[in-house]
Amino acid sequence: MLTRIDHLGIAAPDLDEALGLYGGAFALVTHHREILEDQGVEAVARQVGESTIELLRPIRDDSPVACFLAERGPGIHHVAYRVDDIQAALTELREAGVRLIDQTPRIGLAGTRIAFVHPRSTFGVLSELEQRPEGAEG
Amino acid sequence: MLTRIDHLGIAAPDLDEALGLYGGAFALVTHHREILEDQGVEAVARQVGESTIELLRPIRDDSPVACFLAERGPGIHHVAYRVDDIQAALTELREAGVRLIDQTPRIGLAGTRIAFVHPRSTFGVLSELEQRPEGAEG
Repeated sequence: MLTRIDHLGIAAPDLDEALGLYGGAFALVTHHREILEDQGVEAVARQVGESTIELLRPIRDDSPVACFLAERGPGIHHVAYRVDDIQAALTELREAGVRLIDQTPRIGLAGTRIAFVHPRSTFGVLSELEQRPEGAEG
Repeated sequence: MLTRIDHLGIAAPDLDEALGLYGGAFALVTHHREILEDQGVEAVARQVGESTIELLRPIRDDSPVACFLAERGPGIHHVAYRVDDIQAALTELREAGVRLIDQTPRIGLAGTRIAFVHPRSTFGVLSELEQRPEGAEG
C-alpha cells in the first residue's frame, strides 16, 4: 500500500531560521514553497533522496500547526506516505478498523490528493496518505 | 550531505501490536529485528521505499525510549538520515555550530555507524546520521 515516505512535516515558528539548518549545514535543496490556506500554513519542501522535509510555519493562530507548536514546541508534526490509489487505500484502512481523520481525500501541496489517518490508530504518529497528481514528477 | 531518510524511529510499548498496523493494514515487510543492548531497545525495521520504519520497544526502564514513552506516549522518537561519510558529516556540522550528542560515531542496528544530533539544533527533531557498513545492501 505505502510506496515511500513522501515527506516529514516539521513544525517550526520561523521558516528562515529552519532553512538556515536544513538548507545550510544539512545542504538540502528547495523543491517547493507554497501557502496552504485551508491548512493555515506556509510550507517549504526540501528534497532528501526520494523524500522531502516539509518545514511548516503557521499563518493563523488557530491552525493545527499553531496548536502543535503552542503545546509541544517545534518538532515532527506528521509523516506522509506515498500511495498509488488513495481512495483504495482509505477503503482498505477503514475495513481494517483504522481510524481516519479524512474519510475522503482533499487537496494538499502542489495539487496532491491527501488524507490524514488518526494518530490513535498509528501509535501516536499523525500519518498522511498522499497521491500525486497524474503526470507529476518525483 | 544527507542522501536519504534512512529510517523513522517510532516508540511503541508493544511491538506485536505495532506490527499489527505496520505489517497488517500498511502491509510493510519486515527487514530486520534486533536487540540493541546499549540503546536499551528491541527494534523491528519495515521497508517503505528506500527508507524503513523502525519500531522501538524499550527493554529497560531507564532507556531513552522508555523515558520518551513515559513522558510523551507512543510517537516518532527520531529520524535518521543516511550519509556517505559520517566522520566528515560530524565535522561539517560541528563547524557550522550544530550541537551534537555523539562527537564520534557508535555502532547501531545491523553494524551501521551512527551519531545523534541534538534536537535543540534541529527544531525539536532528534536526528541521527547513519553510515552503512561497507558492502551493505540497500
